[in-house]
Amino acid sequence: MTTTNSTDHTAPALAARLARARRDIDPVLRDAVDTLPAGGVREAARYYFGWIDAEGRPTGSLGGGKSIRAALVLDTATALGAGPAAALPAAAAVELIQAFTLLTDDVLDRDRTRHGRSAAWTVYTAPTALLAGNALLCLALTLPGLPPGAARLLGHATAVMCEGADADTAFESRNDTTWDQCLTMTRQKAGVFLGATAGVGAQCAGADTGVVDLLVEAFTVAGVAFQCANDMLGVWGDPARTGKPTGSDLSGLKRTLVTVDALAHDSEAGQALTTLYAARTPLGPAETERATELVNATDAGRRALDFIDRQTQHILALLDQAVPDPGARRDLEALATMPTSYYTAYADERGPRP
Amino acid sequence: MTTTNSTDHTAPALAARLARARRDIDPVLRDAVDTLPAGGVREAARYYFGWIDAEGRPTGSLGGGKSIRAALVLDTATALGAGPAAALPAAAAVELIQAFTLLTDDVLDRDRTRHGRSAAWTVYTAPTALLAGNALLCLALTLPGLPPGAARLLGHATAVMCEGADADTAFESRNDTTWDQCLTMTRQKAGVFLGATAGVGAQCAGADTGVVDLLVEAFTVAGVAFQCANDMLGVWGDPARTGKPTGSDLSGLKRTLVTVDALAHDSEAGQALTTLYAARTPLGPAETERATELVNATDAGRRALDFIDRQTQHILALLDQAVPDPGARRDLEALATMPTSYYTAYADERGPRP
Repeated sequence: MTTTNSTDHTAPALAARLARARRDIDPVLRDAVDTLPAGGVREAARYYFGWIDAEGRPTGSLGGGKSIRAALVLDTATALGAGPAAALPAAAAVELIQAFTLLTDDVLDRDRTRHGRSAAWTVYTAPTALLAGNALLCLALTLPGLPPGAARLLGHATAVMCEGADADTAFESRNDTTWDQCLTMTRQKAGVFLGATAGVGAQCAGADTGVVDLLVEAFTVAGVAFQCANDMLGVWGDPARTGKPTGSDLSGLKRTLVTVDALAHDSEAGQALTTLYAARTPLGPAETERATELVNATDAGRRALDFIDRQTQHILALLDQAVPDPGARRDLEALATMPTSYYTAYADERGPRP
Repeated sequence: MTTTNSTDHTAPALAARLARARRDIDPVLRDAVDTLPAGGVREAARYYFGWIDAEGRPTGSLGGGKSIRAALVLDTATALGAGPAAALPAAAAVELIQAFTLLTDDVLDRDRTRHGRSAAWTVYTAPTALLAGNALLCLALTLPGLPPGAARLLGHATAVMCEGADADTAFESRNDTTWDQCLTMTRQKAGVFLGATAGVGAQCAGADTGVVDLLVEAFTVAGVAFQCANDMLGVWGDPARTGKPTGSDLSGLKRTLVTVDALAHDSEAGQALTTLYAARTPLGPAETERATELVNATDAGRRALDFIDRQTQHILALLDQAVPDPGARRDLEALATMPTSYYTAYADERGPRP
């Protein structure tokens, strides 16, 4: 996880970097999970991390999580001059919290697949998966070797994320969600924890509060931009590449940065979409196709791309201030500006193009 | 929360002490919850603590939790010479974790009543209650003012408690649970966190590791004794005083320290009870009455009282070592030896008597 001027930011290089982060933190994750007593919670945790299969047999490999958060901790620490070992506990802590989030979300959303495998709650039970998530959250916030202030930053961000997840669900039973409310929810659900992740990376390097705050804000904004890209894929994602059904956010009547913008559009298309949503019945394939056309007619995809672009400019300005050396901040810039390429890599041909 | 030789340990005095602990930590709890952004999670947390009613109106009073854990932190700290203010954050932290536990348990067990009010998940939703519990857990483990080591001790105990809660649930789908397995589960579910609670109280007073460890073990054992008293009330509790149906553990075929002992009893009664449990159908009132008679015939209640008595002697010996001054340890002894009187205060006339 070293930063050099010759770092290649093409997708395969990024994938290799994420895989290296996952490999580097794996022993820390295993040590943490090994402190749990034997039982269903520990087994579900081991399954989540990919160390055992659904029959409890060792897999001899690591799980499929992207470890982007671990990489962000390690890259931030490195950019600010820390040695790689100093940031390993914090990098493991954010992945333990990510595990808590996904174990919980999959139960609440009844999602049956995670990282290309059966979700933990389908292999064990919903209570076991929830309790495993809770146990991992406990381990994360009290992991040995975290820098001063890291537990507080991560704990508060995780609490805010819970509020955001709740707001996301609450929007499903409301018709009056504004785009600003959706942005607040997105910042809570997807921004604040990514910001804290970069912040603890900076804390690992002993950065002063001003630098920590800049990195927190930069990656909070990046988290919102990532979520906006995700929301675009919820409309235009290619099922073959995302693994999710076509237009899953539309068929599920989800209120996202993209769909709320389209719903609020002062046009026939916006009104027709509002009528579809008001029925509160999940849409079938033909209706989903029709809803996608209506979203296209409002040009919400173009505005979402512009929004991501403005966020990206803001992020780059913040990173400029936080890490003055261009060589040192290159990896961070690559991570922070990924949302657009992330969207284009997974979108089908009907979606807007940058 | 001062310790004096004249402290009266009759039940009204204890109730007043617990109420004082609740009142003392209330501002710390409010400050912590106020750090959450506005939303359903924060509202559910406020409702749980009794600050608002189901319509969101301020109640002007505190919730009905017993605050026994807060009192234990404050009493332990005081017994070891800390000023009362030093232990308030730790006392609030254990009640935040207790809130997490009960918010979660009520969802997983579908219990509709808590502290004499509608459980939070029935007022809000199950996901909101779970997320509120998670947010409070985050706040607890990162609360400002915790003594060194407290977050680690509480975090690990909470993770162990998750494993215990999972084992408790897993026993429902098994017929082969031994008493020793039930004891391990009880220690994880009910012992380890009470032990950590006393331990952080000792940490608030700057006690050395040896003293912390003795108090952790003493109250881990006390937690098991409390749970055993609870398990007795699950068979012989007086519905008018416990607020639970007659013989609720028997009607629900729960495997507890009392019922597993009775099930394993080598007698006609033990075998008949095993047959009732093997059907895996919740028992009606007449069958529950019959099951209670079978438990009585195995004399499991007498053995449970003897078990609590042996634990109590062990606790007193440990407290003797941890806090040599008899005056200073009096409040702790009163808390640690409560299980028997707790049982007798809530049991009906068919249960065994000490």
